Amino acid sequence: MEKFTRNQRISAITKILIENPNKIINLNTFTEKFNAAKSTISEDLIAIKDILSRLSMGRVETISGAAGGVRYVCGISEEDRLKFVEELCMILKDRERIIPGNFLYVTDLVLNPYIIQRAGTILASAFNNLNVDYVVTVETKGIPLAYEVAKMLGVQLVVVRRETKVTEGSTVTINYVSGSTNRIQNMSLSKRAIKSGSNCVFIDDFMKAGGTAFGIIDLLKEFDSKLVGIGVLIDNISIEKKLIEEYVSIIEFEGFDPDNNVIVYPSKR
Amino acid sequence: MEKFTRNQRISAITKILIENPNKIINLNTFTEKFNAAKSTISEDLIAIKDILSRLSMGRVETISGAAGGVRYVCGISEEDRLKFVEELCMILKDRERIIPGNFLYVTDLVLNPYIIQRAGTILASAFNNLNVDYVVTVETKGIPLAYEVAKMLGVQLVVVRRETKVTEGSTVTINYVSGSTNRIQNMSLSKRAIKSGSNCVFIDDFMKAGGTAFGIIDLLKEFDSKLVGIGVLIDNISIEKKLIEEYVSIIEFEGFDPDNNVIVYPSKR
Repeated sequence: MEKFTRNQRISAITKILIENPNKIINLNTFTEKFNAAKSTISEDLIAIKDILSRLSMGRVETISGAAGGVRYVCGISEEDRLKFVEELCMILKDRERIIPGNFLYVTDLVLNPYIIQRAGTILASAFNNLNVDYVVTVETKGIPLAYEVAKMLGVQLVVVRRETKVTEGSTVTINYVSGSTNRIQNMSLSKRAIKSGSNCVFIDDFMKAGGTAFGIIDLLKEFDSKLVGIGVLIDNISIEKKLIEEYVSIIEFEGFDPDNNVIVYPSKR
Repeated sequence: MEKFTRNQRISAITKILIENPNKIINLNTFTEKFNAAKSTISEDLIAIKDILSRLSMGRVETISGAAGGVRYVCGISEEDRLKFVEELCMILKDRERIIPGNFLYVTDLVLNPYIIQRAGTILASAFNNLNVDYVVTVETKGIPLAYEVAKMLGVQLVVVRRETKVTEGSTVTINYVSGSTNRIQNMSLSKRAIKSGSNCVFIDDFMKAGGTAFGIIDLLKEFDSKLVGIGVLIDNISIEKKLIEEYVSIIEFEGFDPDNNVIVYPSKR
């Protein structure tokens, strides 16, 4: 059988851990793959654990017991987080992003893997300890970010639709009031999508008054499930009356000043 | 300044490479981060290159010249690919997935990070050499898969909408004929979304007659850009007359047999 050097095992084990965030991987998987003793693999893991924690690149946790093993929990250093968020503010300040109706064009950003991967890691880090079962979003622009958070938390993504679709089977539809426009809107979700008694995190690209998040709480009640966290990329803080109090955001957007500059800054939390 | 051992550097460099697929990383990034000589980093990279290629876990390429460096190109071993695709066929064969109207419920699968990450790697591997500028999809269910392919190829994702949105600025809208239902439908894309002269890959969850892919070709013409590849998760092969000839798929779906079994198998591609 093939033998591998420590360096080689460490590279391959790092890759497997990183590609399976929050999933417990039994040590046997590694001993078999690399034809190595458990003690050897344990030493490899100590080296990986040590460097990730030293560089604040997430952490590797050991879970003991029969169903035990190791898992990678995502993380980003405070230095990298700040650098990224400031870079994102610079990108958002480009006046070319202002479109008729005083909207900020962000579609390219919420579909940019470089940005979404980093934003997803930041948001997921806030929910790592909440025993999350599902990450929920409403179509369309928040889907990549919500997917990235779901991946980092090692859970299923759920996408709430604006209208019912034949490919969803039986659905639950609720009405909710959009907080910023005061209009009544629908959201619809397949009955198969969420098991009862689940903990869910809601992720979206933009938070205005929080009407959508409020609607999600109502929708989840229909599934006997609850919302345990909310995370958004951009929080529109010019809307003072929020329907939701507790949430995590990455960027605060205050609007446009009289000279048509975009006012954004890193979120305080 | 801090010093790191070879094991530690190898783990951290592996992580950085894996998290930035298809992005060229200059060796200086590593020499500065790890306070090490270029020759030392080069030896680290040789170990990483060697193990990834030995285990068919993708590859590390060296690009010479001033703008040179190294980059990770995604890949999956034939053994892992087959194991995953067969596992996916087993999941799809569950009769509970048949919903009224003879549809197959796949929403949970196209939103499952474990599945989408592997499917995305398989599809991206087919387009690694095509100089792709954008990965394009049509909302909604193909977005996570298309996002994963875009990430693996290191390019921007573009999501075509069914209707125009105020937050997209000026848009281009085209009509196209759905190949399976023969109905006229719309697709709409922000004028800012794609630079002219771009190479695009279209990714979707399901291929029926290929009308949507055909529409994408028309839409891309409006952006003076062209479609260089098509990849889908599931190909409905019961529809014999396809509007599109060349595409890559992962699963072939033939429909339901008289006993209501779901007929699926790994794509021959």
